Amino acid sequence: MNTMPGRHFLQIPGPTNVPDRVLRAMDMPTIDHRGPEFQAMAERVLAGIRTIFKTDNPVVIYPASGTGAWEAALVNTLSPGDTVLMYETGHFATLWKSLATKLGLKPEFIEGDWRHGADPDSIEARLREDREGRIKAVCVVHNETSTGAVSPIGDVRKAIDAAGHPALLMVDTISSLASIDYRHDEWGVDVTIGGSQKGLMLPPGLSFNAVSDKALSASRGADMSRSYWDWNEMIAMNGNGFFPFTPATNLLYGLDEAIRMLHEEGLDHVFARHARHGEATRRAVQAWGLDVLCAEPAHYSGSLTAVMMPGGHDADQFRKTVLDNFNMSLGNGLSKLAGRVFRIGHLGDFNDLMLLGTLAGVEMGLEVAGVPYRPGGVQEAMNCISRRSGDD
Amino acid sequence: MNTMPGRHFLQIPGPTNVPDRVLRAMDMPTIDHRGPEFQAMAERVLAGIRTIFKTDNPVVIYPASGTGAWEAALVNTLSPGDTVLMYETGHFATLWKSLATKLGLKPEFIEGDWRHGADPDSIEARLREDREGRIKAVCVVHNETSTGAVSPIGDVRKAIDAAGHPALLMVDTISSLASIDYRHDEWGVDVTIGGSQKGLMLPPGLSFNAVSDKALSASRGADMSRSYWDWNEMIAMNGNGFFPFTPATNLLYGLDEAIRMLHEEGLDHVFARHARHGEATRRAVQAWGLDVLCAEPAHYSGSLTAVMMPGGHDADQFRKTVLDNFNMSLGNGLSKLAGRVFRIGHLGDFNDLMLLGTLAGVEMGLEVAGVPYRPGGVQEAMNCISRRSGDD
Amino acid sequence: MNTMPGRHFLQIPGPTNVPDRVLRAMDMPTIDHRGPEFQAMAERVLAGIRTIFKTDNPVVIYPASGTGAWEAALVNTLSPGDTVLMYETGHFATLWKSLATKLGLKPEFIEGDWRHGADPDSIEARLREDREGRIKAVCVVHNETSTGAVSPIGDVRKAIDAAGHPALLMVDTISSLASIDYRHDEWGVDVTIGGSQKGLMLPPGLSFNAVSDKALSASRGADMSRSYWDWNEMIAMNGNGFFPFTPATNLLYGLDEAIRMLHEEGLDHVFARHARHGEATRRAVQAWGLDVLCAEPAHYSGSLTAVMMPGGHDADQFRKTVLDNFNMSLGNGLSKLAGRVFRIGHLGDFNDLMLLGTLAGVEMGLEVAGVPYRPGGVQEAMNCISRRSGDD
Amino acid sequence: MNTMPGRHFLQIPGPTNVPDRVLRAMDMPTIDHRGPEFQAMAERVLAGIRTIFKTDNPVVIYPASGTGAWEAALVNTLSPGDTVLMYETGHFATLWKSLATKLGLKPEFIEGDWRHGADPDSIEARLREDREGRIKAVCVVHNETSTGAVSPIGDVRKAIDAAGHPALLMVDTISSLASIDYRHDEWGVDVTIGGSQKGLMLPPGLSFNAVSDKALSASRGADMSRSYWDWNEMIAMNGNGFFPFTPATNLLYGLDEAIRMLHEEGLDHVFARHARHGEATRRAVQAWGLDVLCAEPAHYSGSLTAVMMPGGHDADQFRKTVLDNFNMSLGNGLSKLAGRVFRIGHLGDFNDLMLLGTLAGVEMGLEVAGVPYRPGGVQEAMNCISRRSGDD
Repeated sequence: MNTMPGRHFLQIPGPTNVPDRVLRAMDMPTIDHRGPEFQAMAERVLAGIRTIFKTDNPVVIYPASGTGAWEAALVNTLSPGDTVLMYETGHFATLWKSLATKLGLKPEFIEGDWRHGADPDSIEARLREDREGRIKAVCVVHNETSTGAVSPIGDVRKAIDAAGHPALLMVDTISSLASIDYRHDEWGVDVTIGGSQKGLMLPPGLSFNAVSDKALSASRGADMSRSYWDWNEMIAMNGNGFFPFTPATNLLYGLDEAIRMLHEEGLDHVFARHARHGEATRRAVQAWGLDVLCAEPAHYSGSLTAVMMPGGHDADQFRKTVLDNFNMSLGNGLSKLAGRVFRIGHLGDFNDLMLLGTLAGVEMGLEVAGVPYRPGGVQEAMNCISRRSGDD
Repeated sequence: MNTMPGRHFLQIPGPTNVPDRVLRAMDMPTIDHRGPEFQAMAERVLAGIRTIFKTDNPVVIYPASGTGAWEAALVNTLSPGDTVLMYETGHFATLWKSLATKLGLKPEFIEGDWRHGADPDSIEARLREDREGRIKAVCVVHNETSTGAVSPIGDVRKAIDAAGHPALLMVDTISSLASIDYRHDEWGVDVTIGGSQKGLMLPPGLSFNAVSDKALSASRGADMSRSYWDWNEMIAMNGNGFFPFTPATNLLYGLDEAIRMLHEEGLDHVFARHARHGEATRRAVQAWGLDVLCAEPAHYSGSLTAVMMPGGHDADQFRKTVLDNFNMSLGNGLSKLAGRVFRIGHLGDFNDLMLLGTLAGVEMGLEVAGVPYRPGGVQEAMNCISRRSGDD
Repeated sequence: MNTMPGRHFLQIPGPTNVPDRVLRAMDMPTIDHRGPEFQAMAERVLAGIRTIFKTDNPVVIYPASGTGAWEAALVNTLSPGDTVLMYETGHFATLWKSLATKLGLKPEFIEGDWRHGADPDSIEARLREDREGRIKAVCVVHNETSTGAVSPIGDVRKAIDAAGHPALLMVDTISSLASIDYRHDEWGVDVTIGGSQKGLMLPPGLSFNAVSDKALSASRGADMSRSYWDWNEMIAMNGNGFFPFTPATNLLYGLDEAIRMLHEEGLDHVFARHARHGEATRRAVQAWGLDVLCAEPAHYSGSLTAVMMPGGHDADQFRKTVLDNFNMSLGNGLSKLAGRVFRIGHLGDFNDLMLLGTLAGVEMGLEVAGVPYRPGGVQEAMNCISRRSGDD
Repeated sequence: MNTMPGRHFLQIPGPTNVPDRVLRAMDMPTIDHRGPEFQAMAERVLAGIRTIFKTDNPVVIYPASGTGAWEAALVNTLSPGDTVLMYETGHFATLWKSLATKLGLKPEFIEGDWRHGADPDSIEARLREDREGRIKAVCVVHNETSTGAVSPIGDVRKAIDAAGHPALLMVDTISSLASIDYRHDEWGVDVTIGGSQKGLMLPPGLSFNAVSDKALSASRGADMSRSYWDWNEMIAMNGNGFFPFTPATNLLYGLDEAIRMLHEEGLDHVFARHARHGEATRRAVQAWGLDVLCAEPAHYSGSLTAVMMPGGHDADQFRKTVLDNFNMSLGNGLSKLAGRVFRIGHLGDFNDLMLLGTLAGVEMGLEVAGVPYRPGGVQEAMNCISRRSGDD
């Protein structure tokens, strides 16, 4: 057990700081998942989660990690050997691609440099080449958690339409949902994948598929074997507020409360808050003389900021210094970024003073670890925040 | 929200009453699942859960319902089109069979009458016929949750051995684990499936595969597509106390505490307590002049008792009377038993007085609902309990 | 720590079983007791608690045990050497008398046999004798927690009026408030003393004085030294939702929730439930062939039942048997009743099945302890409950 | 309810941020305060609390606010009309004096300027004048919560001894206990008053008297009326782990956990941490160009820092700006300091990053509120902290 005094700063880009109201909602006796009290709660949650995805269509809730929801999206809509067009935004896009391969799909991977979101033009170009319609789905990560770069999903939709291509559009919003504006219906997404442990402010253990009519239709002809992930029985039983197998009751209690909290604050305020924290963080990084990994300002993330370590300094050693000295967890660099970047999560149940404490921990960590930097990052962030104060 | 006074009696055969210590353990901030504090906890849990399955081999922990662990057992060890021998002990055995079919396997189903556990002799006979070794696995439910009948797993093992058959043995212990004695290693089980929300006294959301060397070996040649459920990466990363994807951190906190509690009481005392409660419940049922669904005393369950309704009376109507009048949830009859039986769960974090309150609720419910019965069931149960008191 | 499985049955007559909703409400961060969020909560609680005492006048909330509220009632209204007329209903009335003596008051004690509530006629007779008006206050315990006898407060008021005596009427409702009907204003009580840990379903730590205009007026001329207990500053600051010294913030969170729960159920339903449980308990006691301590049916308590042990059997030994075998705490006999009675608390957050579990624990305890009794108490209680079911 | 996102910064000088472990320990069912499980817990707590006061003598625990413990110290040791020498360190010393007056004592008040701790020389001088020994007790506040000035208690003891005066020494440690080094036995204090809601990291609701043999001896001849506060019965029953009236069970659970946490960190580390945070805060204040209220560096407090507002600016308006914009509660100026100072609490369960977030909230608040200041306070605090990092 962590016996350091005070509250741990959990500034990885998820799981995020779970608010007390959510934890306490979960800390209640489990109830009969086939009884009327459960039913009323489930109906409220199943309706409420749609407002977060901004969809009028069903959202399937799995007792599973986000990885499971990736798998669910694919096995419900595709057949063995199908080609899917995926975009290499970073580590998680790459993991999703590997998963597709393991499942017997044929992913085509548009290469990326892990410093940008997906490029709609490249997608359009590739789809135009696919005259036989072999590509069955386009898969994009909205907010790449390994890099802090956001892909322009609305533009990806337009690119698919411009190419006149029938492929399904599948989007991973695991680290953007309820943090960065996202519109399942308006943007014409077919399957949106989400998870509980980021912007939804829950512990890990639930994941989601928001499903368009087109995706449902595709599921009828999809040949991949599936049972646990199968949408059909789930959606049918959800209609009455029940589930085909035992749901993760207490996590649903937490989801119920989290949805309530998001609407109390207002989704637009939630998004503005995350954007403000992203900007303040980038200004701090700049002031320190360090580089933000994301190279395209239009793709900057409100959820997290990946920071490049100066050459000759190991990001994991730095992270350990911060953890040992300041009781703060930062995110590590993943796969080819290992040791070269650290990531600051600023998403979920978070506010200005928590951000300033976080950035102070980074700045003092740079000092203690002997990493070359210029002081003044926290000061810049304060300037940024205090100028904006009261605006949202 | 249930606004009836006092504590709800959750006497379905799972999810069970989650003890306060477990709920409170889960009600703590989520931590970095890639940090040292998590690692120490995970190593303790991964070691501890083996003691519950009574195995020295790995136990894989999924953020998923028990249904997921059923699927995991099959997809890790089998290839498309493989034949599996399953035994119709009741509704859950039937669901598992359907799941196997959906996954592209060919289940052979030994018919049962839903009033007995599995018969080892029938299994042996069928295996002896299978000279070509087409049967790749024998799948049995240890404690059939829909009927309250226990299958003699040790004898099933002996039957397989007597037939000299190489099939894997897979056992569902979802409603018996940590309630009824179970020995993964000693009984030579290859894959044991478990869930969190019954004897382990947790909310639903975790499920388990305990895996023998033979099963691991089979997994190497198994061709079914899999990713989320794949054992290999999981077991490899578990070696260091980590997981390949975000684990359900807070449920693991609860599991850590639940394992501690089970050992504080002592597994043998846990089993004796469940056996005692099963016996007291059956005596009550008998005194009421009703019938226990399980027709074979050697198969009586310590986890739950399914009770047959007198003809002309609907079990669900009776359950509603009990819920509305006495704030107690009883289990319903499933599929072909719907309306014909109700089930009394007496497993998990439970004690004598909770049992007597439960049985009083049933007896008073029979009275209020106008179901013909003889008074005296609670009295018989008290006789049974008080004679035994102090013995374990 | 209690490591016995299942839920402990806390059947002492207070502290009572704290409902999860109340515990969870308390399990939230402490807030600034001088800030606007606290103020809103305090105003709601200060208004709400009046509805429980059934008064439009102020209710003072102390961070203190009930004993403190006894002291507060006296020191705010009396002067050193004042005579108070107290009534010996049992142990707690006797303690209150001792407290008065320690504070320098002169209690006159109307003797009682610890098997009845207060007799209004005796009070009236004594007051009529007091022609000089030396008696400044009449102090009566509404529900004597040591005996389970209820005093007729409305009749005591009438007795005082009939005697034309100006004495204040002070009533201890520590174990009756929110369990047995009580009407501060309608019955003309001047100071009502309450505590948090019984019918209010909170942990101990708060106590109350509901205060009439006449009592407030008396406080202006009262000469006893006081500071912590002083009503004036408290009532003045309460007007704005604040307190003169740091209040027990988290217990107030719990009180806020408890008041909400009581109104969700409805006070009349709360009282009917307690009455029903008292009756069922007495029928069980009778069936066992034991005697209820309270000798006057009109004074029977809905909060608790004190049961006389058969001669030659020690009640504390019996209580230990019940605790060790059945994980249930029963109340002990106090002072002259020590070893001779045990008390069954059936108040607070309680329901029919919890009561039946409780009575089963007593009946089995009698069996295990070798106390002579007739079986059938639980059966009688079930008859009583199931006949009444659905009525309230 | 506060619906601002993220964690509220409760930076008043108490109640302080209650750690999750303490809140969760309190969030458990109340138990029988006369049973063996309670007894074991109480004995552990009663022994443990002595280690916090650094005494081998009894520590009395009241279900009450700190104000109650002030009263208890006086009524147990003194007689009506007794003279007590008190020292005007600030608002709380003044309140204690008023309380003494209300209780019928005659306080002499050594005037102070509310910017220093007590001056031992003045105390010695006054005692030397008191040749008749009319002064029965010297009362000093260790850490004056209204000003952030610490009195040198060891030197006060020496002053009393130097004067050869028999007066008792009573010390209020409400906002210093478990934050600033304090030694009841070594410093020869007769009664130490403490509270739960500051360094002990609990919600308010418990308070303490640590009692020397001399104080106990004085209590035997003390004539003030007392009952609730009476030490004798309390100490007698505490000997067996019980209490004369219902204790605040759940707060005791929290105290048990808090004592455990303090020893896990180590008291010396706790004190060093508070000292470091005091220094960093003062450096920030200085950098902003503002003045710390405490004028004597030797009296600087590790618990809180009172900051003087620039002329023409209202401290309460500033506090409101901070609360509304940054979700942080700061302490107000009390009585003659109202509107002129704000107080930053940095005590209890607190760490470096929480402090930096706090100071950032103050610095940004000064900006938003239009108060003249120089930027750079947070930067100075970071310099101070990062230089010290790893030292304790």
